[in-house]
Amino acid sequence: MAAGLLACSAPPRDAAPSDAIEPTSAEQAAPLPSWNDGPARAALLDFVARTTRQGGPSFVAPAERIAVFDNDGTLWAEQPFYFQLAFALDRVKALAPQHPEWATTQPFKAVLDNDMKTVLGSGERGLLQIVAASHAGTTTEEFAGIVNDWIGSARHPVTKRRYDEMVYQPMLEVLTWLRANGYKTYIVSGGGLEFMRPWTERVYGIPPEQVVGSRLDVRYEVRAGTPVLVRLPGLDHLDDKAGKPVGIHQVIGRRPTIAFGNSDGDFEMLEWTTAGRGPRLGVIVHHTDAEREWAYDRDSHIGRLARALDDGPGRGWVIVDMKRDWSAIYPAAAARP
Amino acid sequence: MAAGLLACSAPPRDAAPSDAIEPTSAEQAAPLPSWNDGPARAALLDFVARTTRQGGPSFVAPAERIAVFDNDGTLWAEQPFYFQLAFALDRVKALAPQHPEWATTQPFKAVLDNDMKTVLGSGERGLLQIVAASHAGTTTEEFAGIVNDWIGSARHPVTKRRYDEMVYQPMLEVLTWLRANGYKTYIVSGGGLEFMRPWTERVYGIPPEQVVGSRLDVRYEVRAGTPVLVRLPGLDHLDDKAGKPVGIHQVIGRRPTIAFGNSDGDFEMLEWTTAGRGPRLGVIVHHTDAEREWAYDRDSHIGRLARALDDGPGRGWVIVDMKRDWSAIYPAAAARP
Repeated sequence: MAAGLLACSAPPRDAAPSDAIEPTSAEQAAPLPSWNDGPARAALLDFVARTTRQGGPSFVAPAERIAVFDNDGTLWAEQPFYFQLAFALDRVKALAPQHPEWATTQPFKAVLDNDMKTVLGSGERGLLQIVAASHAGTTTEEFAGIVNDWIGSARHPVTKRRYDEMVYQPMLEVLTWLRANGYKTYIVSGGGLEFMRPWTERVYGIPPEQVVGSRLDVRYEVRAGTPVLVRLPGLDHLDDKAGKPVGIHQVIGRRPTIAFGNSDGDFEMLEWTTAGRGPRLGVIVHHTDAEREWAYDRDSHIGRLARALDDGPGRGWVIVDMKRDWSAIYPAAAARP
Repeated sequence: MAAGLLACSAPPRDAAPSDAIEPTSAEQAAPLPSWNDGPARAALLDFVARTTRQGGPSFVAPAERIAVFDNDGTLWAEQPFYFQLAFALDRVKALAPQHPEWATTQPFKAVLDNDMKTVLGSGERGLLQIVAASHAGTTTEEFAGIVNDWIGSARHPVTKRRYDEMVYQPMLEVLTWLRANGYKTYIVSGGGLEFMRPWTERVYGIPPEQVVGSRLDVRYEVRAGTPVLVRLPGLDHLDDKAGKPVGIHQVIGRRPTIAFGNSDGDFEMLEWTTAGRGPRLGVIVHHTDAEREWAYDRDSHIGRLARALDDGPGRGWVIVDMKRDWSAIYPAAAARP
């Protein structure tokens, strides 16, 4: 459908105005077309109808309509490893000519050898070295250009799609439909703030000021008369687990009405959201479709989902079964360039 | 006028919807009624006309229309000392019965003795002790209630007005008029984020998610089954000087089109804003009216203004002369309860 086409076919630097990915009147009449009839779709439709019915007992004032979405595994795919790690690995390779020492130093040698087992086995310390080498040392504007170039050209190793074509069509529909109902949509992701901002407006209709993510330290400098913001290797905020309610507090300052996640990294965000007074909705996207996407939960090294799966239903959270509930996964193939 | 009345007469907990402080049609026809004719008013009117004229050479797309405002000394007064310090002192006094040791420990003894000379002389270390004692140790929701109670009852020592009646009428008009022209208005203040958020929507029409400020560390906890965010004494972000472009980056992620400040603490914010490509506007409010407000700049212990006054005009920044340019300072006296 139109939303999906626009989401993925426009060139990365020509941001489509957000209006372009708002729902058509046909979509408003029959919302969530890629959601199969069933308990998940019914729960979403019911919640939004109740909270937007003026004068009703569950009415939520427009200013309070905040919906937050995890990104990796909730709005786009995350297998066989986080797409931001793919970016980091490509960036290390691009920078390697300036770092001859990497040919013999781990974890960089493993990256250059495409030895993913050693890369992933390098642990938190190794991954932080890769992040520092690949994400810091530029200005914020230079980094945005690097991300844009990458997302406009890199391809996923399995699907061969561009990464920004591996967004979930049913979730694009949720975003546009919530906005049409007066909800302000935010990303609240463990992923890097500056890795997301360059393309979230074009792909999701979510502007930079509505993205919350993990942040590196940044320093203001004036270089030869020109002010810049320089990205430093230190981690300023880790927006995962208990860091998500903290990130929401720092940037939004209101408790959300709706929260979507897919893993135990989203547990605290859903817990914080649904503990608020008045109507609240927590939703977990459960990856159950090994054929069209990936099936994983308790034992996955990425997007581990155990506690939220066990405790969620008792807390009234909606568990989406991707295989059962979604009639499409990615936007139509026609969108592929 | 209506904006001023509403800004200051409503009780603190009953937030007026933002719509209520949007401009009337009369105001749109003759904007900025409390600004005298002169170069400052003309520069503001011209800039907004140019940046909103579709198809014109200076047109700024609505999504990019971001206007940022310092708070202390720009949107409300800041003499004889920051209003947040008055809050901190009142809070120390309220907490004193639980801290008998303060009767003999500085800087708390000086606070309890109303000895402002010693309080201000306690330096950064003393002031940070006062901030930690008065601003930390509660949940975020408890703290919002404490701020609301204070701002609804405390009175300024000189004017005897409530502090939220010491907002500048001409600046309320700028805020509503910019919003009517598609600008998104943000506060970017050295003041405490959580000291501002409880009342900025009611007083300025600026919602919590559009407030950037200094932040204490916050920790997520589940207490007897109820999740809370606990305010800690550590300083997470100081949103002043070079910290302002960093705060803008963290929360907004776009370079502003317009920035208003009043002191050298705003220099980097205006520098960052006006160094952007395309039309940009920097404005400095110069406190020149000893009769109706206060007159201060280079030698003031609060809101020191020297560099921006010297360098601003050469950078094209507009310098507002409060005495010359403003026909009113605060909202009408009728607003006083």
